[in-house]
Amino acid sequence: MAEEAQVVDRQPLPLGQNLTEPIYNAILKAIDEDADRLDLLLSLLHPSDIADLLERLPNQHRGVVLHKVPEDLLGGVLSNVESAVQERLLEEMSAEEVNAAVAKLPSDDVADLLQNMSDEQAIATLRLIPEIQQALLNYEEDTAGGLMQLETLAVPQTWTVGRLMDYLRDSSQKLPNNIATIYITDPTRKLLGTLSLNRLVQISDDKRLSDVMRTDPFTVLPEEPQKDVAQMFEKYDLIALAVVDKNNRLLGQITIDDVMDVILEEHHYEMMHQAGVSDEEDLFGSTMHTTQKRLPWLVINLFTAILASVVISMFEGTIQELVALAVLMPIVASMGGNAGTQTLTVTIRGLAQKKITSKNAYALLKKEFLVGSFNGLVLGTLLAGGTAIVYGNQNLGLVIFAATIANHIFAAIAGNLIPLILERRGIDPAIASGILITTVTDVMGFFTFLGLAAWVLL
Amino acid sequence: MAEEAQVVDRQPLPLGQNLTEPIYNAILKAIDEDADRLDLLLSLLHPSDIADLLERLPNQHRGVVLHKVPEDLLGGVLSNVESAVQERLLEEMSAEEVNAAVAKLPSDDVADLLQNMSDEQAIATLRLIPEIQQALLNYEEDTAGGLMQLETLAVPQTWTVGRLMDYLRDSSQKLPNNIATIYITDPTRKLLGTLSLNRLVQISDDKRLSDVMRTDPFTVLPEEPQKDVAQMFEKYDLIALAVVDKNNRLLGQITIDDVMDVILEEHHYEMMHQAGVSDEEDLFGSTMHTTQKRLPWLVINLFTAILASVVISMFEGTIQELVALAVLMPIVASMGGNAGTQTLTVTIRGLAQKKITSKNAYALLKKEFLVGSFNGLVLGTLLAGGTAIVYGNQNLGLVIFAATIANHIFAAIAGNLIPLILERRGIDPAIASGILITTVTDVMGFFTFLGLAAWVLL
Repeated sequence: MAEEAQVVDRQPLPLGQNLTEPIYNAILKAIDEDADRLDLLLSLLHPSDIADLLERLPNQHRGVVLHKVPEDLLGGVLSNVESAVQERLLEEMSAEEVNAAVAKLPSDDVADLLQNMSDEQAIATLRLIPEIQQALLNYEEDTAGGLMQLETLAVPQTWTVGRLMDYLRDSSQKLPNNIATIYITDPTRKLLGTLSLNRLVQISDDKRLSDVMRTDPFTVLPEEPQKDVAQMFEKYDLIALAVVDKNNRLLGQITIDDVMDVILEEHHYEMMHQAGVSDEEDLFGSTMHTTQKRLPWLVINLFTAILASVVISMFEGTIQELVALAVLMPIVASMGGNAGTQTLTVTIRGLAQKKITSKNAYALLKKEFLVGSFNGLVLGTLLAGGTAIVYGNQNLGLVIFAATIANHIFAAIAGNLIPLILERRGIDPAIASGILITTVTDVMGFFTFLGLAAWVLL
Repeated sequence: MAEEAQVVDRQPLPLGQNLTEPIYNAILKAIDEDADRLDLLLSLLHPSDIADLLERLPNQHRGVVLHKVPEDLLGGVLSNVESAVQERLLEEMSAEEVNAAVAKLPSDDVADLLQNMSDEQAIATLRLIPEIQQALLNYEEDTAGGLMQLETLAVPQTWTVGRLMDYLRDSSQKLPNNIATIYITDPTRKLLGTLSLNRLVQISDDKRLSDVMRTDPFTVLPEEPQKDVAQMFEKYDLIALAVVDKNNRLLGQITIDDVMDVILEEHHYEMMHQAGVSDEEDLFGSTMHTTQKRLPWLVINLFTAILASVVISMFEGTIQELVALAVLMPIVASMGGNAGTQTLTVTIRGLAQKKITSKNAYALLKKEFLVGSFNGLVLGTLLAGGTAIVYGNQNLGLVIFAATIANHIFAAIAGNLIPLILERRGIDPAIASGILITTVTDVMGFFTFLGLAAWVLL
């Protein structure tokens, strides 16, 4: 029976209940009124759902719940909450509590938690798991090295399938959590091949690993950006990926659950940054904190909006003579902004998927130019007709017609070139493109419309 | 040796080269000049990279390359290209070619391809794999049923670990590609439990499956939306998930590689729809096609922009008396639009992650109201100071101060409530929120600024 104990220990955590609305409400009530009931309710939840619960709770209640979480689940809970909440929870914990919580976590999760720990907590953790310091903290967070875990199962190529199966079953071995891919290495840890568990169980015991292993496995260097790692997993349907050094020595592995997190993170990063919202913003953070995080981008926008307003002020005399211009000019600018954002989105997506190369960039620019011209033509015709009728002024219609087409062409060119130029300069095109494109279309929209009006109408 | 043949057949495809820029250029050259060289180059590529190549090629070259792809890779290539390109490739193929290509694909990939086939191709495929028709085509594409594959490994609970291992090694069995999770069912296919391969290889042969299986596995009904399925995989770090009917009978399984695709798809869907770009738009599609796909949203925008312009026209007299108003009014509207988009993004994200509940919605609205007020106060002060100095008119500064604060408050409330209301009405908040929020902030921005000016200044 003792032989089996190790295996049972490796069984996944109990599944537990989802955090449904009734359970959430019951927990809220129990926090205020009934500590025993809170214990019972928490014991029903999966660690990921306890993490969800902690994220949703107002800050003053988080500490109460945190100290009720069973010790063996605490590590899983901590590594599942988002960074802003993690930081607040760690503040509530002593170094000893943190140490107990992280003891069973994979090394990559521990390294991530280290970022948010106090000095005292971090020192205690590094004393407990010293290999993390040398191995993981040297890599940037958003690289393959920052994603990888040190725990791998590496075995010699001289073993047979039978010997490997015996080794796996021998519960005196402390096996890593994730053995979906088995790495076959030489005595210097040079990677010779891999064998998936899927395949292993279909091969007879007498085969030697060197005869059945895959000899050309995908690998990454630790410096590789996490974006590219995620793309490899997605493209080649990987479950795990070996991280090796320049001499092809096995350093660790990246597993698909970490890559899922990266993809979601990149997604949120892109979405949030386009709106100028910090990705570390806690949905339930304090008002002042949120205000400060969002203000800088709005201040930048203040200045770009003033730029557009300076263009308008150049034509104050023109507007004074024909107030209809002030009424119509935001339409030209607004439509250009949206057309530019369309081009921008398609271009950023193409860049992210690496489908835009120096070979086809010019063809795409030409296409966007044509699309912008056609859309401008259609919209300009609609707008000019409406304007000529409403204001009884054919020349005004002609001006708005020409300005709409011109601004759609500017929008198409800018929407295509801005992300390409940013990418070439090493700036993530998702961040700054949005504000740049609306500035271009506002400025050019006001300038062409008011400029043409000054020239044709006055 | 014959006994091993089946196992070797299940080995993954050869890894091959990535589609680097030099290889891509060499292929472009070979298409025009050298058919033999093209064969050689294609034989170097992984099916996923051939799919990439086909996406990148201009349409007239796609057919040439398609007919050079080795038959055993063709299914993998077809299921890896995006839908718009898939459609064009299938047009080039006969029903027999399609049949040969899909023969080795998992059922979910075949069902996806069916959507883009001609009637003749679809009929031939359904004749080849008739179970797909009943089992998969009844489910919506974006549900668990639309994601699942029929191929699963289900075994009786009375088996021992040893018997299961023997079964796996017995190569006369045709095993599904993905056996990371083994399902344990009764004779009516009712799901009793699961066992991961990870765990299986660590258990001794004499144990019965009923004693070692996990008896409360995660399951989904086929009607479940794919978004929720993806969230389950992410939250609980799943590798595979059983799809069951209402009587808990096993229908199929969803594997993590399909979920990765869903996450990326949802991401692009959200990004593209916010800009009013169709997600089926081919980066290399024809100009007319692209124009038509983008135009509808721009036409909607034309009308919402006219709405803002109608508000301005209500104050033509006011602008005539003080042209500075025409210069300044776009600043107020633009900043409100950006502040509203910030609130919108945070709210949409919170909704997607299910962190906003009826319990905390009011607290969040209150917080956004306060954030909007503070940001409006800071920006209004900056803007009012600048305006008073530039125009030497303190009252004009006062008007822009008040209008900026008011519009930021409108932006915060609309940015919070619009996605909540859309979500409650069953409309994806990612689609229409962007255009609604800028309409609100334009209309309210122009109205408050010009209205206050008419009242205070004239």
